Amino acid sequence: MSFDLHRLQNKIKAQFDSEALLEQAVTHRSVGKNNNERLEFLGDSILGFIIADELHTRFPEADEGVMSRLKAHLVNKEALAEIGKDLNLSDELVLGPGEMKSGGKHRASILSDAVEALIGAMYLDKGLDAARAWVFVVLKKRLSSLTLETASKDPKTQLQEYLQARGVKVPKYTIASITGLAHNQQFKVECDVFGVDEKVYSVASSRKKAEQMSAAKILNILQSHD
Amino acid sequence: MSFDLHRLQNKIKAQFDSEALLEQAVTHRSVGKNNNERLEFLGDSILGFIIADELHTRFPEADEGVMSRLKAHLVNKEALAEIGKDLNLSDELVLGPGEMKSGGKHRASILSDAVEALIGAMYLDKGLDAARAWVFVVLKKRLSSLTLETASKDPKTQLQEYLQARGVKVPKYTIASITGLAHNQQFKVECDVFGVDEKVYSVASSRKKAEQMSAAKILNILQSHD
Repeated sequence: MSFDLHRLQNKIKAQFDSEALLEQAVTHRSVGKNNNERLEFLGDSILGFIIADELHTRFPEADEGVMSRLKAHLVNKEALAEIGKDLNLSDELVLGPGEMKSGGKHRASILSDAVEALIGAMYLDKGLDAARAWVFVVLKKRLSSLTLETASKDPKTQLQEYLQARGVKVPKYTIASITGLAHNQQFKVECDVFGVDEKVYSVASSRKKAEQMSAAKILNILQSHD
Repeated sequence: MSFDLHRLQNKIKAQFDSEALLEQAVTHRSVGKNNNERLEFLGDSILGFIIADELHTRFPEADEGVMSRLKAHLVNKEALAEIGKDLNLSDELVLGPGEMKSGGKHRASILSDAVEALIGAMYLDKGLDAARAWVFVVLKKRLSSLTLETASKDPKTQLQEYLQARGVKVPKYTIASITGLAHNQQFKVECDVFGVDEKVYSVASSRKKAEQMSAAKILNILQSHD
């Protein structure tokens, strides 16, 4: 699909002075030299600053460790790829034929890079305040649901610490099945813990997520027995 | 040593509206709760943005990999600690008694954290433009000597690739001696390469630096024979 300035600007709800800059922001390196990697490098640093500044202001009592975890929660690859999906960016990406064929437009890393590149392009085209405002719009849901509890440890870590404290062996995660097409796979992961007889499974779009969900279920079972 | 606002402002050549903020920026966590870790978190992200922005502007032909290496070269812990030394910050740091005793005021990580915290404090006290201007002043020497060649691979990596390409075993680095007091140690490192009979030593303030220097010497010897 060829680049459509009007459609992309509608999706991201922003008007660019430089059409070339906006096109570059959605152009993957598989296309050639004039790709979005430089903009991504710039956008990544701008996003890091905007988020650090916001967390510092919003959580005056949070220490550095908590802020780092909140930041990692907000701007990791998966979270940025979801923003790309929310904005329906996949069909706006300019990819080389190989990436196009292999479903690259749905790949988390490619979507996440494009979102960072858009932030970089917005900064160059409109300045820091505009880039910041746009980041707050696209992160609105995640920012408004953010609490200090978000920074608490993830379920796998919690489960491991729970078991270690009780001298029980670490849990064993096994992929029970992978179904679906390349960019739409479902991972079914089993979590085995010594002393829990129930079979605990979770299904999610990534192995990691399914592991976390299984760990949360096991934790629930264990804690309901405490 | 107790905090001296006047002396510190003279050293960093900046006037702060908030004395408390400036004191916090030089206060290590060993002192207690009101330390510089939150400011360091903020300053680290601001510095990352300022440098990425500058590199993006100054090197329009550099790709993302080159810019990443230039950034790592400019803002790594050692480089920031050197800025702290250039500013003569050691005696302005507020440390707990334990850190004070063990020479913490000269430790690279503590100096580097304080420099980042100063950048964060400057941003909060005076805004982004002032923080950016200060960063350019303290990084002036390093920024002006920066070229795309700076981003080339370090001597150890170059040596390893040189040897691998010729099927020669990887070099062996050995610490021949460590001399000097805790915060002023000198590392003497020997580099052995199959086929080079000369004994090659370098002495530097860190093991890593001494290794790099030895690798550079060996490379010179090898390349002069090519």
